[in-house]
This record gives sequence, structure tokens and C-alpha cells, in this order.
Amino acid sequence: MMPQQMVGFIEEDLKKVEGAIAHHLESQVGFISEVARYVLSSGGKRVRPVLLILSARLCNDGGERMYDLSAVIEFIHTATLLHDDVIDNAALRRGNPTVHALWGNEMAILIGDYLYSKAMALALSDKDHLVMQTVSNVTVEMAQGQVIETLKLRDLAMSEDDYYRIIDLKTASLFAASCTIGAVLGGLSPSQRAQVTAFGQHTGIAFQMADDILDFVAPEAQLGKPVHNDLKEGKITLPLIMAMQHASAQEAQMVVEYFHKKDSTEADVQPILALLHKYDTLQCAMAKAHEHVLKAQQCLEGFAPSPALDALHALADYVVARDV
Amino acid sequence: MMPQQMVGFIEEDLKKVEGAIAHHLESQVGFISEVARYVLSSGGKRVRPVLLILSARLCNDGGERMYDLSAVIEFIHTATLLHDDVIDNAALRRGNPTVHALWGNEMAILIGDYLYSKAMALALSDKDHLVMQTVSNVTVEMAQGQVIETLKLRDLAMSEDDYYRIIDLKTASLFAASCTIGAVLGGLSPSQRAQVTAFGQHTGIAFQMADDILDFVAPEAQLGKPVHNDLKEGKITLPLIMAMQHASAQEAQMVVEYFHKKDSTEADVQPILALLHKYDTLQCAMAKAHEHVLKAQQCLEGFAPSPALDALHALADYVVARDV
Repeated sequence: MMPQQMVGFIEEDLKKVEGAIAHHLESQVGFISEVARYVLSSGGKRVRPVLLILSARLCNDGGERMYDLSAVIEFIHTATLLHDDVIDNAALRRGNPTVHALWGNEMAILIGDYLYSKAMALALSDKDHLVMQTVSNVTVEMAQGQVIETLKLRDLAMSEDDYYRIIDLKTASLFAASCTIGAVLGGLSPSQRAQVTAFGQHTGIAFQMADDILDFVAPEAQLGKPVHNDLKEGKITLPLIMAMQHASAQEAQMVVEYFHKKDSTEADVQPILALLHKYDTLQCAMAKAHEHVLKAQQCLEGFAPSPALDALHALADYVVARDV
Repeated sequence: MMPQQMVGFIEEDLKKVEGAIAHHLESQVGFISEVARYVLSSGGKRVRPVLLILSARLCNDGGERMYDLSAVIEFIHTATLLHDDVIDNAALRRGNPTVHALWGNEMAILIGDYLYSKAMALALSDKDHLVMQTVSNVTVEMAQGQVIETLKLRDLAMSEDDYYRIIDLKTASLFAASCTIGAVLGGLSPSQRAQVTAFGQHTGIAFQMADDILDFVAPEAQLGKPVHNDLKEGKITLPLIMAMQHASAQEAQMVVEYFHKKDSTEADVQPILALLHKYDTLQCAMAKAHEHVLKAQQCLEGFAPSPALDALHALADYVVARDV
């Protein structure tokens, strides 16, 4: 969950979001409810529902629709986590065994599909075309982002632009969509809606950049999953892309050889980490993440002071300062 | 493709369906287009688009919307095939290597997700609430059906009712949805729409029953995939459920032992096949499939004679008489 001082004033809203999630997880198939409840109650921070609610509350009250649509966003997010865990063959998420580890690949794929479908059905029942369009567009973007990311695994020709394109599609798009939907519910003007959507986009980019940096530096207990996961999966993120720009031919060759290896160990990873430290690219990448936080906050210029505005500012800071 | 004498008069429609499929597969990510084209042009019979078009043409002309919405249905169908192949670890489909075999699990999962999302976005652009609702409900039902099927793998307590529930959700629902959408486009009355939807449901049930019987009897060259696939995956279908109702204690024990084994071979499968032949349950199951064909055809009573009506009758016969 998010820090209390940031979201305390929307505590009632967040309780209703939990209620909506629980309500819409009830399925005619008891097993689906059970597995979906397991994964949806396993320590997610609900960042996206918070974004939706705060965006709605910038000018007005978003009304009851905020809760069901927050459930829509969390269902989509959870569906991608379930499929990610199959793809990455991950055993742990947030310190708990993954659905794929407990119930097998089949169930992780199928319950992911179920949550996608359920999200769409629920978004449709909102009957707002713009909301529905936002939801359906974002799922297309996320799938595209994940395909590109998979294509670029172990590809050291990957550029900073490639990196930004991937995280923009796979992560920031859902942050932006959460803000867009909140803006629609709160009755913001089209130009205000564009402002909060851009806020969500930059916040999402910063969030993913911080996530990628944490993968290099945070201990397992904090990550809730094995350390250096990205490197071991062949995922090339900003700190490494930046280091490759400075690397000597010999250093670059070492990195190339690392990515040619299968089943790399912690010992294999160490020379890469040393390279990042030598060229200080974890710091550089974090500085870039902070630039996006600043850009996000600048997007909100012109909104009248309100608790929601303060909380959005704080949330943008939080996504790069959080533990995990 | 379907027999020419059945669908010859909608040949132009079917060409436009192929055009719509190709058009909407164009993605900003070239690789997605390539893989999706591979799987969508690999010998599918387009049964569901044919159902949609014939339903629309029962009374009127469904107009241009028929083609995009046929693409929606085929995208959903293809997404489930991609995910199925990962779940079943299948190497062949329709005689061709599967996406999962060629490009890996990751891509089969992600491009399946992409096709689902794309289908939803495309259905939304139709702007008809009933169409969109039909599309979103059917994906929920299909996911439920597949979860139940997976839960019931190797479960010899599975009943005929369980079997019908599974095939109704996983297969017949999309046949029914294709007919519903066609009926909406053709401007059929609500009661006529209910008739063609029920036609689709019974036709889909008959189709899946025939598919399950073919898995026991057809040679590999005809199936386009290994023989006795269902048995080897632990999938229990109607002929076996019926045989278990007649089996002696000793025969039942043999079946139980078969399903406790891992990695069964063709030799392991033979005693099960002998059991089905002894109690003639392949014939019995086929007779039940024919009952659904008849029920499907009875659903169409009251429609004025037309080439579309004739073709729907023929199509219901075809789904149990086809090679594969």
C-alpha cells in the first residue's frame, strides 16, 4: 500500500476499490475466484487506482464509477503479471509464490485471460465510449510493448530510444490510462485531461526506470523476488545501455559474452555490476528518472490547489523513492 | 476452407473477410504482423465468419460491418489457439509448426494477448453496444470453459454434464456469438436473434463433439497434429465418459492407471481404444452429436427459404461430417 500521509484522505475510496475488486472476482467457477483473490490480495500497492481516484478528485468527485473502473485497471495489471510470470518462469512475486509456481503455467495463462476478459466486460458496463476506448487501446499498447521487449532480449544493439519506447508502452500506458479515466470521471476539460494523461505517462516512465534500477541494487527481501532478475533473463535496461556507451572494447566484449551464456549465476553478474558502478550509470539513470518526475509535476501546472493535487505531486516523487 | 457448394454464394463476402483480417493485422510492430499473419493464414476453415455472414444474410444484407466483425471473431479464436498450444505444449497445428514451437512460449502468449486486445479494440470501433457486449461476454465464457477443462484433466469423476458445460463454454459460446452478431447486423428481431444464437450453440456443441471423436479415430495426416492427443494430455471426452459407465471394475481400474501415468505412449493408449470399441461409445457419442445437429436445424424453423438458410442447414450437417 501507498504511504498513509499521501493517500489517507482517500482511504474510504480505496476501501471501496477493494470492495469492487472482491465483488467482481466472484466467478461461477469457484477456483477462478480463489486464484484471482490470491494474486489480487498479495500486497499490490494499488498505485494505478490511486492515480485514477486522485485524477478524478482534482476538480470534482468521480462518483461511484471510480471503484469499478479501478477494478478494471487492477484486473488488467494483474493479468499482465500472471502472463509475465509464465514468460519469466518466475517462482516469487512480492515475496509470495507465483500462480504459475502454485497452480502451473496453464492456470496462470487462463486466469490471466479471464481477468483481461472480465476487465473488458466491466469497462463495457460503464457505457462511456471514451473510457472503453482508453481501456481497449491500453491493452493493445501493453501487448505491443511486451512483444518488443521480448524481441530485444539479449540484444546489445538496443538504444535508449528503444528502452523508452518499451517502458512507455508496457508500463506508462496503463499509468496514463488510469489518469485519463479519472479525468473523464471527474469531468475535467479535454485540455486538463491531456495534462493529467501526460502526468500519468511521465510518472509511469519514472516508475519503471526506478524499478529497473532497483533490480540491480535492492536485496531479495526488499524485491520479493530473486536479485538481478532482469540481467539473468537477458533484459537490457537503461543503466546497462548507458554503460555500454562508455565501455572499452574489452568491457563491451565481456558484456556480449555474458549475454551469450545460458543460466548465468550471481558470480557471472558481478563484472556487469562493476561496470555500472565504474561509469556511475545507476546514478545517471536515476537522475533521468527524476527528470520525468519533474516533467510529470510540471504537467499539473494551472490546477487549483487541492489535497488531490498535493497527493499527485507526492506520488510522482514516491515512485522513484519507494523501496520496491 | 468450407465446401464450395455451401459457401460459393458468399465467396465475395469471404474475400472481404480475408481483406479485413489482413488489414487489421498490420501493426506498428512488424514482427507481430508477421507472426499473426502466419497463424491466421495457416488453413483455418473460417467456420465462425461463415456463421456470422450466413446469420446476417438470413433476412437482409449485413453490410460492411460483417467483415471487421468476422475479423474480431477470428482474432479471438486465434488468440485461444495460441494460448492452447502453449498449455498443451503442442508442436503442430493444421500440419504446421505452432507459433509456440517456432518463436517460443513468450511470443505465443504475448501475441495471443495482442490479438485479444486488438479484437476488443476493433469490436469497440463498431460502436454497437450489443455487439460489444456479445464479444466481451464470450471471452469471459471461453476463459471459464478452459479453466474448468484444465481442472478436470485426468479426473475420471467427470460427468456427461461436466463435459457439456465445458464444450458449451469453450467452443459453442463463440459459435453462438458469431450468429448473434450476424443477427444484429442483419436486423433480425430479438426472437429471431435468439433462434440463430441457439442454432450456433447447438452447432458448436456438435462441432466440438465431432472434434473430440476425431481425436480417437483420425490419422495424423488428417488431424494435422499427433493422434490421440486428448488422451495423452489427460483430457477426458464423451466417448470415454460413456465407456466408463459400462466398464467392469477391472476395466475401470485399467483406465485409472492409465491416467496416473506420465508420458503415455501409443501402446498405453490401445487398451483404452479397445474399451471404446467394445462398448461402441464412439458411435454413441457421434449419435449424440447428430442430435445437436438436428436441434440446431430445428432452431431455424420459421425463417423464409433463402440460400443462407440452406447453407446454415448444410453447415450444421458439415460440422459432424467434416474430415477435421
